[in-house]
Amino acid sequence: MTAAASGLPDVAALRRKVTSVLAGFVEEKAAAAAELRMPTEVTGCLRAFLARGGKRLRPLLCVTGWQAAGGEGVPEPVIRTAASLEMFHTFCLIHDDVMDDSGMRRGAPTLHRQLARHHEHGRSIADAERVGASCATLIGDLALAWSDELLHSAALTPAQLAAVLPLVSAMRSEVMYGQYLDVTTAGHPTTDVERALRIVRYKTAKYTVERPLHIGAALADAPDTVHEALSAYALPIGEAFQLRDDLLGVFGTPQETGKPALDDLREGKHTVLLSLALQTAGAAHREELRRLIGNRELTEPEAAHVRGILTGTGARQTVETMISRRREQALTALEHPAITPRARALLYHLADSATHRTS
Amino acid sequence: MTAAASGLPDVAALRRKVTSVLAGFVEEKAAAAAELRMPTEVTGCLRAFLARGGKRLRPLLCVTGWQAAGGEGVPEPVIRTAASLEMFHTFCLIHDDVMDDSGMRRGAPTLHRQLARHHEHGRSIADAERVGASCATLIGDLALAWSDELLHSAALTPAQLAAVLPLVSAMRSEVMYGQYLDVTTAGHPTTDVERALRIVRYKTAKYTVERPLHIGAALADAPDTVHEALSAYALPIGEAFQLRDDLLGVFGTPQETGKPALDDLREGKHTVLLSLALQTAGAAHREELRRLIGNRELTEPEAAHVRGILTGTGARQTVETMISRRREQALTALEHPAITPRARALLYHLADSATHRTS
Repeated sequence: MTAAASGLPDVAALRRKVTSVLAGFVEEKAAAAAELRMPTEVTGCLRAFLARGGKRLRPLLCVTGWQAAGGEGVPEPVIRTAASLEMFHTFCLIHDDVMDDSGMRRGAPTLHRQLARHHEHGRSIADAERVGASCATLIGDLALAWSDELLHSAALTPAQLAAVLPLVSAMRSEVMYGQYLDVTTAGHPTTDVERALRIVRYKTAKYTVERPLHIGAALADAPDTVHEALSAYALPIGEAFQLRDDLLGVFGTPQETGKPALDDLREGKHTVLLSLALQTAGAAHREELRRLIGNRELTEPEAAHVRGILTGTGARQTVETMISRRREQALTALEHPAITPRARALLYHLADSATHRTS
Repeated sequence: MTAAASGLPDVAALRRKVTSVLAGFVEEKAAAAAELRMPTEVTGCLRAFLARGGKRLRPLLCVTGWQAAGGEGVPEPVIRTAASLEMFHTFCLIHDDVMDDSGMRRGAPTLHRQLARHHEHGRSIADAERVGASCATLIGDLALAWSDELLHSAALTPAQLAAVLPLVSAMRSEVMYGQYLDVTTAGHPTTDVERALRIVRYKTAKYTVERPLHIGAALADAPDTVHEALSAYALPIGEAFQLRDDLLGVFGTPQETGKPALDDLREGKHTVLLSLALQTAGAAHREELRRLIGNRELTEPEAAHVRGILTGTGARQTVETMISRRREQALTALEHPAITPRARALLYHLADSATHRTS
């Protein structure tokens, strides 16, 4: 059964369109860099990063927001706006990886690691690492600036641009603040579930789901009722998505997630999962969690021990329950008559894959 | 004699207006952060950074570009556009300091150092430094995003916005590429004067002088002749400005420059000064320069020795001559009839202070 016959928009075709806009844009930038005699490794890195995949979740949600508000078809300005969200996300991922000093992303070495390697000739290891981090930071900065250029060259009407800009601005500040909370809390997991949920809300639920939907809806001049209905879906499903991510980060396999199984525990991110475990663990287990989580030298046997505690305290099951409850809330919100049937089908599908996924 | 009576625009008053727009904007962001229960240290850091001064050179040049093209007075949208350039520059400085791991800026500890200190409780030194660098990177990211918001809330006409956006985009990419060239070359000074001049052109001449003038001129719908006349002034004076900066970085005093006297030599930036010295030094001196420059443990006696070589090879004098020649070129370009007399007076004044300054 084809996507059209199933009533679902053709997600694969949408992804291809977004990827093609991004690839074309990067080629223009590569040609401009060559003309200015600027290092073409910048656009080379971005091209490879974008080609390695990614779910294109934010662009898909942007297009879905457009359709949810009654927008017809998938016009070029909508695709280009959607692509600008993916370019912005590229900035986020590159900077996050530098901040976390992550080693792998999408099954390949992270950009700062690749660039440290590329510039290691004649440098000490520490100097090469510094150059790698600086280069990746700058490529991220360019991706942020270029996400703007994609948006401003989307041929939006003045009314569309005026509707979208405040949402894009809010999205940027929210995810940056969310990351700020995250990096200042990492390494110090506490029993503060509320703070962990606030990070989830800003770094994921609003950034990944609500804002892309709203931006798409704003392109179609959606009334407040549509924005509200989309929020009622977006926030719980976005939280569920991140809670699933936290579980996968600890219990998933590298084959499934594309990153080493110990990264999340070694970073010691302040997750809801850890906060709950710290709340309910006995004194001895709590002490062990505090000692092992955030330890950059954590071994696989120690990680297995941590996983045992997270399961034994019931924290893992509680997070599963939180995911189910949020999924139910989101699906109920989808019944709102303000959302078009076509968008409802896609949002239903996304809710399913976000909460049951293994990668 | 007052500024008005001298025929010069009142530079101090312009600086105050720009600073007041920036301060008001940061207060709005601080109020928004408090409402979202986001860490207010972000806006606190930006507020203090902006209050510690800076020459506001790019905003002044933006306003001058407006006047050079016949713009009347200093309307609010022009001031706000000018302020957005200062916010963008704040982003550049914060990220540059992280990349160079600079210790001082504007007579105070750099942002990443302050933030490492602020978050050191319960962390190892290495972890606190990582958190400090991450926080400063994020505050820089926010400053970049917010420079956009300042521009988009400047109440420009659609024609003004359309004229300005491509220039702002070009400015961003140029300075980021210039910095990319800089960080990948630092620590490896060579005899390649052309590459050193290319860094100067993109990181300073175009970014600091030409683009701000063009952006101001574009607000006044300037014809190509004005843009060209401004470029003929901007590029040589911008190069002279950076060449002076390179000399001050090596021969200036901390009292004058606000930063430690050894920073530039320790970073080993690939400057025209060093390239020239490497070209003309004898084998023994060349070897010493290669050994000492970029050495993060460089002592003051070693620095004095390097200064002796830079003077002895004639490189210092050659750079002085390059500055004079560029200053002459710039002043000649100012005679172009397309530039208004009022703007000419200010540009003459800026050329003087850029090339004769001590800080």
